Amino acid sequence: MNYCSQCGAGVSLSIPEGDHLPRHICDQCGEIHYQNPKVVVGCIPEYGQQLLFCKRAIAPRLGYWTLPAGFMENGETAAAGALRETLEEAGAEVEIMDLFTLFNLPHINQIYLLYRARLHEPVFAAGIESLEVKLLEEEQVPWDEIAFPVITESLKLYFADRRAGQFGFHSGDMIRLPGDSPRFEVNMLNAAG
Amino acid sequence: MNYCSQCGAGVSLSIPEGDHLPRHICDQCGEIHYQNPKVVVGCIPEYGQQLLFCKRAIAPRLGYWTLPAGFMENGETAAAGALRETLEEAGAEVEIMDLFTLFNLPHINQIYLLYRARLHEPVFAAGIESLEVKLLEEEQVPWDEIAFPVITESLKLYFADRRAGQFGFHSGDMIRLPGDSPRFEVNMLNAAG
Repeated sequence: MNYCSQCGAGVSLSIPEGDHLPRHICDQCGEIHYQNPKVVVGCIPEYGQQLLFCKRAIAPRLGYWTLPAGFMENGETAAAGALRETLEEAGAEVEIMDLFTLFNLPHINQIYLLYRARLHEPVFAAGIESLEVKLLEEEQVPWDEIAFPVITESLKLYFADRRAGQFGFHSGDMIRLPGDSPRFEVNMLNAAG
Repeated sequence: MNYCSQCGAGVSLSIPEGDHLPRHICDQCGEIHYQNPKVVVGCIPEYGQQLLFCKRAIAPRLGYWTLPAGFMENGETAAAGALRETLEEAGAEVEIMDLFTLFNLPHINQIYLLYRARLHEPVFAAGIESLEVKLLEEEQVPWDEIAFPVITESLKLYFADRRAGQFGFHSGDMIRLPGDSPRFEVNMLNAAG
Protein backbone atom coordinates (compact mmCIF):
# COMPACT_ATOMS: atom_id res chain seq x y z
CA MET A 1 0.00 0.00 0.00
CA ASN A 2 1.46 3.33 -1.17
CA TYR A 3 -1.50 5.73 -1.27
CA CYS A 4 -4.58 6.47 0.82
CA SER A 5 -7.66 4.94 -0.82
CA GLN A 6 -9.81 7.71 0.73
CA CYS A 7 -7.95 10.91 -0.27
CA GLY A 8 -5.10 9.79 -2.57
CA ALA A 9 -2.24 11.19 -0.41
CA GLY A 10 0.78 9.12 0.60
CA VAL A 11 0.69 6.72 3.54
CA SER A 12 3.31 5.90 6.17
CA LEU A 13 3.72 2.82 8.31
CA SER A 14 3.46 3.61 12.03
CA ILE A 15 1.77 2.34 15.18
CA PRO A 16 -1.43 4.29 15.96
CA GLU A 17 -1.95 5.48 19.55
CA GLY A 18 -3.29 2.64 21.70
CA ASP A 19 -2.48 0.06 19.01
CA HIS A 20 0.29 -2.56 19.00
CA LEU A 21 1.08 -3.09 15.31
CA PRO A 22 2.30 -0.82 12.50
CA ARG A 23 -0.51 0.24 10.13
CA HIS A 24 -0.62 2.20 6.89
CA ILE A 25 -1.77 5.67 8.03
CA CYS A 26 -2.60 8.51 5.64
CA ASP A 27 -0.15 11.43 5.91
CA GLN A 28 -2.97 13.85 5.02
CA CYS A 29 -6.39 12.69 6.28
CA GLY A 30 -5.16 10.35 9.04
CA GLU A 31 -7.21 7.37 7.89
CA ILE A 32 -5.85 4.09 9.29
CA HIS A 33 -5.85 1.29 6.70
CA TYR A 34 -6.10 -2.06 8.46
CA GLN A 35 -5.27 -5.29 6.67
CA ASN A 36 -6.90 -8.47 7.93
CA PRO A 37 -7.05 -12.16 7.05
CA LYS A 38 -9.39 -13.32 4.32
CA VAL A 39 -11.84 -16.19 4.55
CA VAL A 40 -11.87 -18.94 1.92
CA VAL A 41 -15.11 -20.94 1.78
CA GLY A 42 -15.78 -24.17 -0.03
CA CYS A 43 -17.53 -27.53 -0.14
CA ILE A 44 -16.74 -31.21 0.10
CA PRO A 45 -19.50 -32.28 -2.32
CA GLU A 46 -20.63 -35.87 -1.70
CA TYR A 47 -22.45 -38.03 -4.21
CA GLY A 48 -22.84 -41.39 -2.52
CA GLN A 49 -19.30 -42.57 -1.82
CA GLN A 50 -17.79 -40.19 -4.36
CA LEU A 51 -16.55 -36.62 -3.93
CA LEU A 52 -16.54 -33.90 -6.56
CA PHE A 53 -13.09 -32.55 -7.47
CA CYS A 54 -12.01 -29.69 -9.74
CA LYS A 55 -8.83 -29.50 -11.80
CA ARG A 56 -7.60 -25.91 -11.63
CA ALA A 57 -7.54 -23.84 -14.84
CA ILE A 58 -5.90 -20.86 -13.12
CA ALA A 59 -2.80 -19.99 -11.11
CA PRO A 60 -1.74 -20.82 -8.50
CA ARG A 61 -1.42 -24.60 -8.92
CA LEU A 62 -2.86 -24.74 -12.44
CA GLY A 63 -3.54 -28.35 -13.45
CA TYR A 64 -3.73 -29.60 -9.85
CA TRP A 65 -6.87 -30.97 -8.20
CA THR A 66 -8.85 -29.25 -5.48
CA LEU A 67 -12.30 -28.93 -3.94
CA PRO A 68 -14.55 -26.06 -5.02
CA ALA A 69 -13.60 -23.07 -2.83
CA GLY A 70 -12.84 -19.37 -3.06
CA PHE A 71 -12.83 -16.05 -1.25
CA MET A 72 -15.93 -15.21 0.75
CA GLU A 73 -17.61 -12.01 -0.44
CA ASN A 74 -18.99 -9.08 1.53
CA GLY A 75 -22.71 -9.43 2.21
CA GLU A 76 -22.85 -13.22 2.06
CA THR A 77 -22.67 -15.93 4.70
CA ALA A 78 -19.88 -18.51 4.63
CA ALA A 79 -22.31 -21.26 3.57
CA ALA A 80 -23.76 -19.06 0.80
CA GLY A 81 -20.22 -18.40 -0.42
CA ALA A 82 -19.43 -22.12 -0.41
CA LEU A 83 -22.58 -22.81 -2.47
CA ARG A 84 -21.66 -20.02 -4.89
CA GLU A 85 -18.10 -21.27 -5.38
CA THR A 86 -19.36 -24.82 -5.98
CA LEU A 87 -21.75 -23.55 -8.64
CA GLU A 88 -19.10 -21.31 -10.26
CA GLU A 89 -16.20 -23.78 -10.30
CA ALA A 90 -17.97 -27.11 -10.58
CA GLY A 91 -21.35 -26.20 -12.10
CA ALA A 92 -22.95 -28.15 -9.27
CA GLU A 93 -25.91 -27.30 -7.05
CA VAL A 94 -25.36 -28.82 -3.63
CA GLU A 95 -27.12 -28.84 -0.30
CA ILE A 96 -24.95 -27.68 2.62
CA MET A 97 -24.88 -30.07 5.57
CA ASP A 98 -22.37 -29.15 8.28
CA LEU A 99 -19.22 -27.15 8.68
CA PHE A 100 -16.50 -29.80 8.58
CA THR A 101 -13.14 -28.00 8.90
CA LEU A 102 -11.81 -24.61 9.94
CA PHE A 103 -8.09 -24.22 9.20
CA ASN A 104 -5.93 -21.21 9.98
CA LEU A 105 -3.19 -20.54 7.43
CA PRO A 106 -1.37 -17.65 9.12
CA HIS A 107 1.55 -17.63 6.62
CA ILE A 108 -0.86 -16.47 3.90
CA ASN A 109 -3.38 -14.65 6.14
CA GLN A 110 -6.27 -16.99 5.40
CA ILE A 111 -8.94 -18.98 7.22
CA TYR A 112 -10.36 -21.94 5.29
CA LEU A 113 -13.93 -23.10 5.97
CA LEU A 114 -15.05 -26.30 4.25
CA TYR A 115 -18.63 -27.55 4.45
CA ARG A 116 -19.85 -31.07 3.83
CA ALA A 117 -22.43 -30.82 1.08
CA ARG A 118 -24.70 -33.22 -0.76
CA LEU A 119 -24.89 -33.44 -4.53
CA HIS A 120 -28.33 -34.94 -5.16
CA GLU A 121 -27.85 -35.61 -8.89
CA PRO A 122 -24.57 -36.23 -10.74
CA VAL A 123 -24.92 -32.94 -12.62
CA PHE A 124 -21.78 -30.80 -12.87
CA ALA A 125 -19.61 -29.00 -15.41
CA ALA A 126 -16.25 -27.24 -15.40
CA GLY A 127 -16.60 -23.48 -14.76
CA ILE A 128 -14.09 -21.06 -16.27
CA GLU A 129 -11.69 -21.59 -13.37
CA SER A 130 -11.68 -25.37 -13.85
CA LEU A 131 -10.19 -27.56 -16.61
CA GLU A 132 -12.17 -30.59 -15.54
CA VAL A 133 -14.65 -31.63 -12.82
CA LYS A 134 -14.89 -35.24 -11.72
CA LEU A 135 -16.51 -37.52 -9.14
CA LEU A 136 -13.85 -39.67 -7.47
CA GLU A 137 -13.87 -42.60 -5.06
CA GLU A 138 -11.43 -42.45 -2.16
CA GLU A 139 -9.00 -44.83 -3.92
CA GLN A 140 -9.05 -42.63 -7.03
CA VAL A 141 -7.97 -39.43 -5.21
CA PRO A 142 -4.74 -38.18 -6.84
CA TRP A 143 -2.97 -37.44 -3.55
CA ASP A 144 0.22 -36.29 -5.27
CA GLU A 145 -1.67 -33.83 -7.43
CA ILE A 146 -3.76 -32.01 -4.82
CA ALA A 147 -3.38 -28.25 -5.23
CA PHE A 148 -3.14 -27.15 -1.58
CA PRO A 149 -2.00 -28.81 1.65
CA VAL A 150 -5.14 -27.57 3.45
CA ILE A 151 -7.24 -29.59 1.00
CA THR A 152 -5.10 -32.69 1.55
CA GLU A 153 -5.52 -32.37 5.35
CA SER A 154 -9.26 -31.83 5.08
CA LEU A 155 -9.67 -34.86 2.82
CA LYS A 156 -7.66 -37.04 5.23
CA LEU A 157 -9.95 -35.96 8.09
CA TYR A 158 -13.00 -36.56 5.92
CA PHE A 159 -12.07 -40.12 4.97
CA ALA A 160 -11.00 -40.93 8.55
CA ASP A 161 -14.38 -39.71 9.88
CA ARG A 162 -16.23 -41.61 7.18
CA ARG A 163 -14.43 -44.83 8.10
CA ALA A 164 -15.24 -44.17 11.77
CA GLY A 165 -18.90 -43.79 10.83
CA GLN A 166 -19.32 -40.26 12.20
CA PHE A 167 -18.44 -36.83 10.90
CA GLY A 168 -17.21 -34.30 13.47
CA PHE A 169 -16.11 -30.70 13.25
CA HIS A 170 -12.36 -30.14 13.11
CA SER A 171 -10.52 -26.89 13.66
CA GLY A 172 -6.83 -26.29 13.68
CA ASP A 173 -3.79 -24.51 12.34
CA MET A 174 -1.38 -25.27 9.52
CA ILE A 175 1.93 -23.69 10.41
CA ARG A 176 4.43 -23.46 7.56
CA LEU A 177 7.84 -24.79 8.54
CA PRO A 178 11.05 -23.04 7.47
CA GLY A 179 12.64 -24.19 4.21
CA ASP A 180 12.05 -23.95 0.48
CA SER A 181 9.69 -26.89 0.11
CA PRO A 182 6.22 -26.34 1.60
CA ARG A 183 6.05 -28.42 4.78
CA PHE A 184 3.52 -27.81 7.55
CA GLU A 185 2.97 -28.56 11.18
CA VAL A 186 -0.73 -29.36 11.68
CA ASN A 187 -2.14 -28.53 15.14
CA MET A 188 -5.73 -29.58 15.71
CA LEU A 189 -7.90 -28.02 18.39
CA ASN A 190 -11.33 -29.62 18.15
CA ALA A 191 -10.43 -33.28 17.92
CA ALA A 192 -13.71 -34.71 19.16
CA GLY A 193 -16.42 -35.85 16.78
CA MET B 1 -12.64 3.79 -1.89
CA ASN B 2 -11.72 6.70 -4.17
CA TYR B 3 -8.08 6.14 -5.07
CA CYS B 4 -5.80 3.22 -5.96
CA SER B 5 -3.68 2.28 -2.96
CA GLN B 6 -0.95 1.03 -5.35
CA CYS B 7 -0.45 3.97 -7.74
CA GLY B 8 -2.67 6.79 -6.38
CA ALA B 9 -4.83 7.18 -9.51
CA GLY B 10 -8.64 7.23 -9.40
CA VAL B 11 -10.68 4.03 -9.26
CA SER B 12 -13.98 3.11 -10.94
CA LEU B 13 -16.54 0.50 -9.97
CA SER B 14 -16.99 -2.14 -12.65
CA ILE B 15 -17.23 -5.91 -13.03
CA PRO B 16 -13.87 -7.45 -14.03
CA GLU B 17 -13.87 -10.00 -16.88
CA GLY B 18 -14.90 -13.41 -15.59
CA ASP B 19 -16.12 -11.94 -12.29
CA HIS B 20 -19.70 -11.47 -11.12
CA LEU B 21 -19.56 -8.45 -8.79
CA PRO B 22 -18.51 -4.81 -9.22
CA ARG B 23 -15.04 -4.07 -7.84
CA HIS B 24 -12.98 -0.93 -7.40
CA ILE B 25 -10.57 -1.07 -10.36
CA CYS B 26 -7.72 1.39 -10.89
CA ASP B 27 -8.21 3.58 -13.97
CA GLN B 28 -4.44 3.71 -14.47
CA CYS B 29 -2.68 0.50 -13.34
CA GLY B 30 -5.70 -1.84 -13.55
CA GLU B 31 -5.28 -3.17 -10.00
CA ILE B 32 -8.51 -4.78 -8.73
CA HIS B 33 -9.23 -3.88 -5.09
CA TYR B 34 -11.31 -6.63 -3.50
CA GLN B 35 -13.16 -6.06 -0.24
CA ASN B 36 -13.89 -9.10 1.91
CA PRO B 37 -15.47 -9.93 5.26
CA LYS B 38 -13.42 -9.52 8.42
CA VAL B 39 -13.05 -12.09 11.17
CA VAL B 40 -13.73 -11.15 14.80
CA VAL B 41 -12.15 -13.52 17.33
CA GLY B 42 -12.79 -13.73 21.05
CA CYS B 43 -13.14 -15.85 24.15
CA ILE B 44 -15.78 -17.02 26.59
CA PRO B 45 -13.45 -17.04 29.61
CA GLU B 46 -14.61 -19.49 32.30
CA TYR B 47 -13.57 -19.36 35.94
CA GLY B 48 -15.52 -22.13 37.61
CA GLN B 49 -19.19 -21.25 37.07
CA GLN B 50 -18.39 -17.61 36.31
CA LEU B 51 -17.64 -15.93 32.99
CA LEU B 52 -15.44 -12.88 32.45
CA PHE B 53 -17.21 -9.86 30.96
CA CYS B 54 -15.89 -6.47 29.80
CA LYS B 55 -17.75 -3.15 29.94
CA ARG B 56 -16.87 -1.27 26.74
CA ALA B 57 -14.91 1.98 27.04
CA ILE B 58 -15.14 2.69 23.30
CA ALA B 59 -17.73 3.11 20.58
CA PRO B 60 -19.78 1.37 19.35
CA ARG B 61 -21.89 0.44 22.39
CA LEU B 62 -19.82 2.30 24.97
CA GLY B 63 -20.88 1.32 28.49
CA TYR B 64 -22.44 -1.98 27.39
CA TRP B 65 -21.14 -5.41 28.38
CA THR B 66 -19.44 -7.87 26.06
CA LEU B 67 -16.96 -10.74 25.92
CA PRO B 68 -13.33 -10.00 25.03
CA ALA B 69 -13.13 -10.03 21.20
CA GLY B 70 -11.74 -8.03 18.31
CA PHE B 71 -10.51 -8.14 14.73
CA MET B 72 -8.17 -10.98 13.83
CA GLU B 73 -4.79 -9.74 12.57
CA ASN B 74 -2.72 -10.85 9.61
CA GLY B 75 -0.13 -13.47 10.56
CA GLU B 76 -1.98 -14.88 13.55
CA THR B 77 -4.31 -17.82 14.02
CA ALA B 78 -7.88 -17.27 15.22
CA ALA B 79 -7.09 -18.80 18.62
CA ALA B 80 -3.97 -16.63 18.99
CA GLY B 81 -6.09 -13.58 18.18
CA ALA B 82 -8.69 -14.59 20.76
CA LEU B 83 -5.94 -14.95 23.40
CA ARG B 84 -4.49 -11.56 22.44
CA GLU B 85 -7.85 -9.78 22.64
CA THR B 86 -8.56 -11.35 26.04
CA LEU B 87 -5.22 -10.11 27.31
CA GLU B 88 -5.67 -6.63 25.79
CA GLU B 89 -9.28 -6.01 26.84
CA ALA B 90 -9.53 -8.00 30.06
CA GLY B 91 -5.92 -8.28 31.23
CA ALA B 92 -6.48 -12.02 31.52
CA GLU B 93 -4.32 -14.94 30.44
CA VAL B 94 -6.55 -17.82 29.44
CA GLU B 95 -6.15 -21.30 28.02
CA ILE B 96 -8.10 -21.93 24.81
CA MET B 97 -10.28 -25.03 24.89
CA ASP B 98 -12.57 -25.43 21.88
CA LEU B 99 -14.15 -23.29 19.22
CA PHE B 100 -17.69 -22.79 20.49
CA THR B 101 -19.51 -20.58 17.98
CA LEU B 102 -19.09 -19.37 14.42
CA PHE B 103 -21.63 -16.70 13.47
CA ASN B 104 -21.98 -15.00 10.11
CA LEU B 105 -23.10 -11.36 10.28
CA PRO B 106 -23.50 -10.57 6.57
CA HIS B 107 -25.11 -7.15 7.17
CA ILE B 108 -21.78 -5.90 8.58
CA ASN B 109 -19.46 -8.25 6.63
CA GLN B 110 -18.17 -10.09 9.69
CA ILE B 111 -17.61 -13.64 10.88
CA TYR B 112 -17.50 -14.05 14.67
CA LEU B 113 -15.46 -16.90 16.20
CA LEU B 114 -15.75 -17.41 19.95
CA TYR B 115 -13.61 -19.92 21.82
CA ARG B 116 -14.30 -21.43 25.20
CA ALA B 117 -11.31 -20.61 27.36
CA ARG B 118 -10.24 -21.34 30.92
CA LEU B 119 -9.11 -18.67 33.35
CA HIS B 120 -6.99 -20.58 35.85
CA GLU B 121 -6.63 -17.74 38.39
CA PRO B 122 -9.04 -14.84 38.99
CA VAL B 123 -6.49 -12.36 37.69
CA PHE B 124 -7.79 -9.69 35.29
CA ALA B 125 -7.84 -5.93 34.80
CA ALA B 126 -9.59 -3.49 32.47
CA GLY B 127 -7.52 -2.72 29.35
CA ILE B 128 -7.78 0.68 27.66
CA GLU B 129 -10.84 -0.46 25.67
CA SER B 130 -12.69 -1.53 28.84
CA LEU B 131 -14.24 0.51 31.66
CA GLU B 132 -14.56 -2.50 33.91
CA VAL B 133 -13.93 -6.25 33.84
CA LYS B 134 -15.96 -8.61 36.01
CA LEU B 135 -16.62 -12.29 36.69
CA LEU B 136 -20.37 -12.98 36.58
CA GLU B 137 -22.58 -15.93 37.41
CA GLU B 138 -25.31 -16.80 34.89
CA GLU B 139 -27.97 -15.08 37.03
CA GLN B 140 -25.88 -11.91 37.18
CA VAL B 141 -25.58 -11.50 33.39
CA PRO B 142 -27.02 -8.07 32.44
CA TRP B 143 -29.01 -9.37 29.45
CA ASP B 144 -30.45 -5.92 28.65
CA GLU B 145 -27.00 -4.35 28.61
CA ILE B 146 -25.14 -6.75 26.31
CA ALA B 147 -23.34 -4.79 23.58
CA PHE B 148 -24.00 -7.01 20.55
CA PRO B 149 -26.74 -9.51 19.59
CA VAL B 150 -24.09 -12.06 18.51
CA ILE B 151 -22.78 -12.08 22.08
CA THR B 152 -26.28 -12.56 23.49
CA GLU B 153 -26.89 -15.52 21.14
CA SER B 154 -23.53 -17.09 21.99
CA LEU B 155 -24.15 -16.76 25.73
CA LYS B 156 -27.60 -18.35 25.38
CA LEU B 157 -26.03 -21.31 23.56
CA TYR B 158 -23.28 -21.50 26.18
CA PHE B 159 -25.63 -21.66 29.18
CA ALA B 160 -27.94 -24.11 27.37
CA ASP B 161 -25.01 -26.44 26.65
CA ARG B 162 -23.75 -26.11 30.21
CA ARG B 163 -27.15 -27.06 31.60
CA ALA B 164 -27.23 -30.02 29.18
CA GLY B 165 -23.83 -31.09 30.51
CA GLN B 166 -22.02 -31.02 27.15
CA PHE B 167 -20.53 -28.27 25.04
CA GLY B 168 -20.92 -28.60 21.28
CA PHE B 169 -19.84 -26.47 18.36
CA HIS B 170 -22.48 -24.17 16.92
CA SER B 171 -22.40 -22.39 13.60
CA GLY B 172 -25.04 -20.21 12.06
CA ASP B 173 -26.13 -16.93 10.61
CA MET B 174 -27.63 -13.80 12.14
CA ILE B 175 -29.71 -12.13 9.46
CA ARG B 176 -30.74 -8.56 10.23
CA LEU B 177 -34.47 -8.02 9.68
CA PRO B 178 -35.81 -4.83 8.05
CA GLY B 179 -36.73 -1.98 10.37
CA ASP B 180 -35.06 0.63 12.53
CA SER B 181 -34.59 -1.45 15.65
CA PRO B 182 -31.99 -4.19 15.38
CA ARG B 183 -33.86 -7.49 15.14
CA PHE B 184 -32.33 -10.68 13.79
CA GLU B 185 -33.34 -14.03 12.40
CA VAL B 186 -30.95 -16.65 13.79
CA ASN B 187 -30.39 -19.69 11.55
CA MET B 188 -28.24 -22.44 13.05
CA LEU B 189 -26.48 -25.01 10.90
CA ASN B 190 -24.57 -27.28 13.27
CA ALA B 191 -27.20 -27.96 15.88
CA ALA B 192 -25.72 -31.19 17.23
CA GLY B 193 -23.51 -31.24 20.29
